[in-house]
Amino acid sequence: MPRWKPDARERFVTAALHLFTEQGYDETTVAEIADRAGLTKSTFFRHFSDKREVLAAGQETLSRLFAEGIAAAPAEASPLSAVDAGLTHAAGSMTPFNRELGPRLEAVIATSSELQERAVLKRVGMAAAIADALRRRGVEATMADTAAELGVLAFKAGFEAWTAEDNELSLAQLTSAALHRYYSAVSQLG
Amino acid sequence: MPRWKPDARERFVTAALHLFTEQGYDETTVAEIADRAGLTKSTFFRHFSDKREVLAAGQETLSRLFAEGIAAAPAEASPLSAVDAGLTHAAGSMTPFNRELGPRLEAVIATSSELQERAVLKRVGMAAAIADALRRRGVEATMADTAAELGVLAFKAGFEAWTAEDNELSLAQLTSAALHRYYSAVSQLG
Repeated sequence: MPRWKPDARERFVTAALHLFTEQGYDETTVAEIADRAGLTKSTFFRHFSDKREVLAAGQETLSRLFAEGIAAAPAEASPLSAVDAGLTHAAGSMTPFNRELGPRLEAVIATSSELQERAVLKRVGMAAAIADALRRRGVEATMADTAAELGVLAFKAGFEAWTAEDNELSLAQLTSAALHRYYSAVSQLG
Repeated sequence: MPRWKPDARERFVTAALHLFTEQGYDETTVAEIADRAGLTKSTFFRHFSDKREVLAAGQETLSRLFAEGIAAAPAEASPLSAVDAGLTHAAGSMTPFNRELGPRLEAVIATSSELQERAVLKRVGMAAAIADALRRRGVEATMADTAAELGVLAFKAGFEAWTAEDNELSLAQLTSAALHRYYSAVSQLG
């Protein structure tokens, strides 16, 4: 098992996921999460606005990373290559912590329709962030929208493969392979 | 302006949209909607579970129509043609009422983050319905997912063109043209 030195933020996330799994999301209070993490409620509220934020925080960071990676892609890169650069940039920021917690996070989200809705909205927010970043590179809107949908599907598939399997491939390799798989699939639809 | 004979359901929707526009979504009660429609509250609750449902009802029907149209497409149809058949089937059920109310509905949704979230979730539900219907035809999952995203983008674009412009083309023609535009765009991403 990989080792890392958890900061306060990661300790809150770990504690929250344990409690959500043990006793349910609705039944868990911020006070209990702080207790379990060995930190105070006021420290909790310096990191998160409420307990739902504990689960959503990572997804907001992802949208920013996608946009940064797309903006930094070479000017001559195709829209697909620019999306690939965005996914690769985001993948590079994911840690062993994300890899280990990913499946547990999914399991907790599956128990609550409120959390499922939140997760869906974040995914749509990611697609919008990718499409915006592509349009800022001068990619035409119709192409930007379709590329963004492929990017979100690919990141989701790559992340699932990374967390579900004891995989030798890096997350960046898995998201890139998924992106090309989706692109190949979509080209054969007609 | 086209004429149609509104049934109770359409009278509630029209009354609700007027009130939401005039005084805001949050400030409008079911009693006021029933009053404005010239009907009773108990009739309202035979058609809708709450005032939010007034805005969402059409979108649920759409998912069913997409799936029906896809299922009925010829066995030899490509995934893209099957999606086209789904959009065409759904388009055929849209009335002058939908065409006139569409823009006002969009305007009301734009005023409330709760309604915006609801609309996004319904769109994701439509993509899932399309992907399911394609998988039932034996379409491989990666292709079904990408085809579903193109279908949702195309229906949205076609519907917007239909309601925004004084367009001679039918909704089915507009959604079909949009689907082929998105397909052509996605094929040039690489």
